[in-house]
Amino acid sequence: MNAEILSVGSELVAGRIADTNAAYLSENLLRLGIRVSRHTALGDDLDAVRQALIEIAGRADAAVVTGGIGPTPDDITRQAFAEAGGVALTESPEAARALRARFASWGREPSPSNLLQAYIPRGARLIGNPNGTAAGFAMQLKRCLFFCLPGVPFEMKAMCDRDVFPELGRRSGKCSAVRLIQVFGVGESVVGERLNDLMRRGRDPDVATQVSDGVITVRVTATGEDADRIAERVEADAAVIRERLTKYVYAEGDLSLAQAVARLLKKRRLTIAVAESCTGGQIAARLTDIPGISRHLIEGVTAYSNEAKIRRLGVPEDLIGRHGAVSAETALAMADGMRRTSGADIALSTTGIAGPSGGTQDKPVGLVYTALSAADARAVREHRLGGGRAAVRNRAAKRALDLARLYLEEKLNDA
Amino acid sequence: MNAEILSVGSELVAGRIADTNAAYLSENLLRLGIRVSRHTALGDDLDAVRQALIEIAGRADAAVVTGGIGPTPDDITRQAFAEAGGVALTESPEAARALRARFASWGREPSPSNLLQAYIPRGARLIGNPNGTAAGFAMQLKRCLFFCLPGVPFEMKAMCDRDVFPELGRRSGKCSAVRLIQVFGVGESVVGERLNDLMRRGRDPDVATQVSDGVITVRVTATGEDADRIAERVEADAAVIRERLTKYVYAEGDLSLAQAVARLLKKRRLTIAVAESCTGGQIAARLTDIPGISRHLIEGVTAYSNEAKIRRLGVPEDLIGRHGAVSAETALAMADGMRRTSGADIALSTTGIAGPSGGTQDKPVGLVYTALSAADARAVREHRLGGGRAAVRNRAAKRALDLARLYLEEKLNDA
Repeated sequence: MNAEILSVGSELVAGRIADTNAAYLSENLLRLGIRVSRHTALGDDLDAVRQALIEIAGRADAAVVTGGIGPTPDDITRQAFAEAGGVALTESPEAARALRARFASWGREPSPSNLLQAYIPRGARLIGNPNGTAAGFAMQLKRCLFFCLPGVPFEMKAMCDRDVFPELGRRSGKCSAVRLIQVFGVGESVVGERLNDLMRRGRDPDVATQVSDGVITVRVTATGEDADRIAERVEADAAVIRERLTKYVYAEGDLSLAQAVARLLKKRRLTIAVAESCTGGQIAARLTDIPGISRHLIEGVTAYSNEAKIRRLGVPEDLIGRHGAVSAETALAMADGMRRTSGADIALSTTGIAGPSGGTQDKPVGLVYTALSAADARAVREHRLGGGRAAVRNRAAKRALDLARLYLEEKLNDA
Repeated sequence: MNAEILSVGSELVAGRIADTNAAYLSENLLRLGIRVSRHTALGDDLDAVRQALIEIAGRADAAVVTGGIGPTPDDITRQAFAEAGGVALTESPEAARALRARFASWGREPSPSNLLQAYIPRGARLIGNPNGTAAGFAMQLKRCLFFCLPGVPFEMKAMCDRDVFPELGRRSGKCSAVRLIQVFGVGESVVGERLNDLMRRGRDPDVATQVSDGVITVRVTATGEDADRIAERVEADAAVIRERLTKYVYAEGDLSLAQAVARLLKKRRLTIAVAESCTGGQIAARLTDIPGISRHLIEGVTAYSNEAKIRRLGVPEDLIGRHGAVSAETALAMADGMRRTSGADIALSTTGIAGPSGGTQDKPVGLVYTALSAADARAVREHRLGGGRAAVRNRAAKRALDLARLYLEEKLNDA
């Protein structure tokens, strides 16, 4: 099955927002064994949308169209479908009832333009919208089955889960299994070398990597008709990948490094504290993104100035004088001081030069030290990070979190 | 002039990333008075890309094509252009020189597949890539002038600024002026009411609002042939908007609240420190995103636990006992304690219930206090924030930063 996505909205072609709906839909259709070959975005232009529908109808087996079914005059997608199919728009009694009930629950009456949202092309099948007033519909045009949905992501997603994905899954007769393996602390080229035979073009399951700010996600995808069989094949590949990438695999599934650390803290019932210089609060902010972390995160200190390192963390002034604020010694003293003053089981620290200024020949921009202090282990690492201030800070935060992850997995001293 | 964007890359149609390049290009072309009517994204499929180029060539005056010009076999955009134009690919001596020099600077020799990146269709004009190895080019096909660029955003953007935008600006013969007015602390409906006459559909300049996590950006856009004239019209609207939105306007241009605070600290030569409970390091992280902030940010403390509030910040234990950790009194005591223990001119604090759990009937999820302490002012605010944990934390951080902004602008006590 070959599918396309059409997104309608002037805010898209004016560049005010990126088309995240198209990405969401494609990813989920792929999971159903349906390949999406094209995304199109158009403004609220009746002629252009009608023309695009006719083109897609001749090219694709299935299409999802989002946007342009609101209550205002610039919402033309409904009309474009009616014209492309040569049929009239007609009120769906079921949609009209739902719309009136929704307005009644707000103590209001729908206006005539609101009621237009209950109209669908004659012969189309209604797709109810549990979260909004715009009715969706499914409609066959030539060889292509179209699904027309609102552009508001949470309305669109609920209608996909209830109606569109189940129907397309039945029609594709296929299913996919996807496994994500999260890798950190090693370069993409090394991952590519170690997984070279698995990543061969055309191999099944498909093994591909994607890098985002230092985290490499290895994605294993298998498609077929027998769900158990493809799950087995994906698991077999995942096992090989885990073995070859050793300690660099930090999690499976859609998990950040901070989430992996939080899980391990919970599992081992340990507490953590963080002392941040160059990362300036980012590690604390990432950890506190996670619900329930208050039982494990004792506190964080953003010690940008030397004075704060000395006063808050008890780093000896002469140690900073001898080695500098950006040094392995200071990083370790920050972690030790943080652990001592907070009473946490584990303390992390960062100190480095994020740039753009502040670098010297000896200590260039991008030089970062991360350290960990625990009752039974101390570790410090030197990093040379590139890519500008934001990237240096981001990677440094992840390097520090990864130290905690390795400690908690008892892999700190693995080769 | 009517333009289109074509993005090539299997990662786009597989839904692994959203097409942010298309949004960036559209927004910038609009600024040059060029309306983008369509975005298309295709996988790395030679036939589909060639066919799309031919369609666009018959429909648009200009087009920007990104992606698919890397060194691997799945990069087919170069070939698709050659086939669509009926010409051969030929090495650009200038691009080949630049490529060899780039590899030499890494102490490496380019491979034959790397050298392919210096090939462009015969008759096309080279667009040099200052940040990468893939050469871009400009090429006329039928009525349409195409620009072909790499998909890597920072390479693409640099080539747009140096080549594509200046050339398209000359050809459009029009120019636009855009003014962004950043507003915080008031609802979009209030902004809509106060600017109702300016936001009328079809009015020139165009005045539109966009909301992102509580910040409302009012965008004033005028397009025309006389640059001075449109700049005047935009400025006249901006003046009216500033007057009507009073103290809620925190900046003009593409500036975050943290950046606005950093500018004010620099201007007034003052220092700041932050004590965060529910925002957990986010305020510190936002401030330390800004280069040069080390002269103004003394330190930050993430005091999640009561113990940390007492020990690090000197909040009296019995005050927390009487009023609770989430209270106006504790917020003020945290700010006062932070200022006293850090020696900063201004201290901010946050305490609240970010959820999803931890709420009670009296103190529900979303209840947040923000406070400011300075030698000549103290302030505390109560907020009821919605939208889930991430949104509550995000808004709370902004509310606290806005307290600092109002203090620094001497508007803390304005109605």
